[in-house]
Amino acid sequence: MDIYDRSLARHRETRGKIEIHSRMRLESQDDLSLAYTPGVARPCEEIAAHPGAAWDLTWKGRTVAVVSDGSAVLGLGDIGPMGSLPVMEGKAALFREFAGIDAVPVVLDERDPQKIIDIVKAISPTYGGINLEDISGPRCFEIEDALQDIGIPVLHDDQHGTAIVLLAAVMNAARLTKRTLGQLNVVINGAGAAGRAICRLLTCTGQDPHCIPVGKLRVCDSKGVIYPGRDHNTGVKEEIAELTNTAGERGSLRDVLVGAHVFIGVSKGGLLQAKDIESMGHQPIVFAMANPVPEIMPDEARAGGAVVVGTGRSDFPNQVNNVLAFPGLFRGALESRARKFTPGMKFAAIQAITSCVGEPTAEMILPSPFDRSVAVRVANAVAAAARADRVCHQHKPE
Amino acid sequence: MDIYDRSLARHRETRGKIEIHSRMRLESQDDLSLAYTPGVARPCEEIAAHPGAAWDLTWKGRTVAVVSDGSAVLGLGDIGPMGSLPVMEGKAALFREFAGIDAVPVVLDERDPQKIIDIVKAISPTYGGINLEDISGPRCFEIEDALQDIGIPVLHDDQHGTAIVLLAAVMNAARLTKRTLGQLNVVINGAGAAGRAICRLLTCTGQDPHCIPVGKLRVCDSKGVIYPGRDHNTGVKEEIAELTNTAGERGSLRDVLVGAHVFIGVSKGGLLQAKDIESMGHQPIVFAMANPVPEIMPDEARAGGAVVVGTGRSDFPNQVNNVLAFPGLFRGALESRARKFTPGMKFAAIQAITSCVGEPTAEMILPSPFDRSVAVRVANAVAAAARADRVCHQHKPE
Repeated sequence: MDIYDRSLARHRETRGKIEIHSRMRLESQDDLSLAYTPGVARPCEEIAAHPGAAWDLTWKGRTVAVVSDGSAVLGLGDIGPMGSLPVMEGKAALFREFAGIDAVPVVLDERDPQKIIDIVKAISPTYGGINLEDISGPRCFEIEDALQDIGIPVLHDDQHGTAIVLLAAVMNAARLTKRTLGQLNVVINGAGAAGRAICRLLTCTGQDPHCIPVGKLRVCDSKGVIYPGRDHNTGVKEEIAELTNTAGERGSLRDVLVGAHVFIGVSKGGLLQAKDIESMGHQPIVFAMANPVPEIMPDEARAGGAVVVGTGRSDFPNQVNNVLAFPGLFRGALESRARKFTPGMKFAAIQAITSCVGEPTAEMILPSPFDRSVAVRVANAVAAAARADRVCHQHKPE
Repeated sequence: MDIYDRSLARHRETRGKIEIHSRMRLESQDDLSLAYTPGVARPCEEIAAHPGAAWDLTWKGRTVAVVSDGSAVLGLGDIGPMGSLPVMEGKAALFREFAGIDAVPVVLDERDPQKIIDIVKAISPTYGGINLEDISGPRCFEIEDALQDIGIPVLHDDQHGTAIVLLAAVMNAARLTKRTLGQLNVVINGAGAAGRAICRLLTCTGQDPHCIPVGKLRVCDSKGVIYPGRDHNTGVKEEIAELTNTAGERGSLRDVLVGAHVFIGVSKGGLLQAKDIESMGHQPIVFAMANPVPEIMPDEARAGGAVVVGTGRSDFPNQVNNVLAFPGLFRGALESRARKFTPGMKFAAIQAITSCVGEPTAEMILPSPFDRSVAVRVANAVAAAARADRVCHQHKPE
């Protein structure tokens, strides 16, 4: 059986991937009176009087909802909320395994962005954080933006999880090749969820003290370089154009790749060949993230001269796996009782992941997805950044 | 420390009452590829093609959401969604302990009934059933009614859980006193959530083969007997009046209690005295459910001649505790993959609870809340009734 048939068989065997356990003994009348009526009235009143007590007295402070409408699931596209449930349950299981967080799926039979925003707001008192997942663009941008001030941190992982791990990889690749980020000319192919988030993190120079300033950045989509005022630019593409290409440079992906140092592919596979990598500048760095077929296969990229190659796949070295980011991001946010994710918290996560690799090599740019210390280091860094950014709920005074 | 302070301390110690565990090993790259990408694509596609497969391949078929807006919590009233979280988590823990069901709280920062209906519909693909809890009337009726055809069973436990256990108790009290239900004159005080549900179950004669036909039934509220056309009757009260009192009888609770055989109190405490019970007919049966202070204390009811007395409290005999109903109700619905709860399923639950007591006595009208066999017997009876009523999702053909 291949991996797909084995996965189906394993899901049938376990009937899903997560289950609920009780944390309180419920064996006697006394137990029942403490966990439920009449005793439970007291923690209820405590929370009604001091909402912050919910973090101490319920599961809220250790719980994340993994929310999807099933509109952009893996490479499968729009398979609906119930179809997406195995992915969301899998993510919940990863939260438990990698960060000790209690996460639950919530899949929504709703497509209107404003209604999704209203639903997530309405259910938010239940949880300490919201992980948006596999929601199609451009709705994912509108939904995430509108949920930034609901009092608990909301993060669309397809945007930021991927962006954070990729930028940690780029930073270590620069370290390996003894260059600063300011010396690098970067080309991103793909202006979807991850593309915009990477672009935002790389272009905040001067506005944010934590910024990662690269020398030059262009973003391409299927029509080539994105520039201001291009025909049919969406709002997101116009934003990207203004951030990266005010000079209005035009051309194809192949054109802008000439002389570039870093290629980041977050679009579709099989676009590039060895000669494209040969056209790049000194010591090319290639992250070909398309799944399951990368923009260029690692062997071919190396044949073209790439000194570091990473993909999204586990069967090649340097897997850019967002399991390196999201467990620690949310654990840090929950531990600090953060109201939101700030740029500072995201940069802290990038630096923490980077520092988990003592001496990066061409085959080991990132820590292993199974290195359990990564989530702890990311969590500590994110919590410290949240406190520094003063976005934390106050504990109830004792 | 009293029970309230001990409950607060225990909640602080455990930080809530439920937690999430993973059901799949996640220790190797192979594990990750089966539980998550790329393998998980296969169960996703299977569900997208055959929605019924979600019951086999995800947690859906064993999961209930405990949904509240926090508007009518215990005796505390409107303490908001976050304040209600300890109750909903407690309920989830009881589902685990008594029925082996995976239940999660969902508390809603929303009060508009139509919006609550829309939200519950939208999140429903995630779960196999919805337990509505502690939602104030009359909104609770509108919300529950509107959610009967969303494809998974929805039950407002404050209405039906209480009604089912109470009617099981009434049936066994009739058995003990060697009377048929048709010989009994019943008075209900309270026209809220439980009052309406009891009234509906007792007045469906002729329309439903499972019906429990009582001889006579009147329902009172704070203004006395409810009759058709009474000033300021709500829709619910007008419905109750039409079901129970087309003759238009008027009077106070004390008036209608004269000659009655059964008193069911589901309103507020301290209303009755021994002499009121003395005025009742032969072998009075008294269920005084108000919490924490019953409508009449058991000693006083017995002094007035009551032969059976039950309350909602665990420190007196005959506790009418809905933990006898809801775990088995939902387990039976999940096991049969029921689309909804039918009257037949509710009557099956009543009969199953009744039959758990071999020979009822004045001190043992109901099984103990800790009798673990009750939920199993209720579940089997409810599942059989769901199949008989043909309201079950079909399994995917193998």
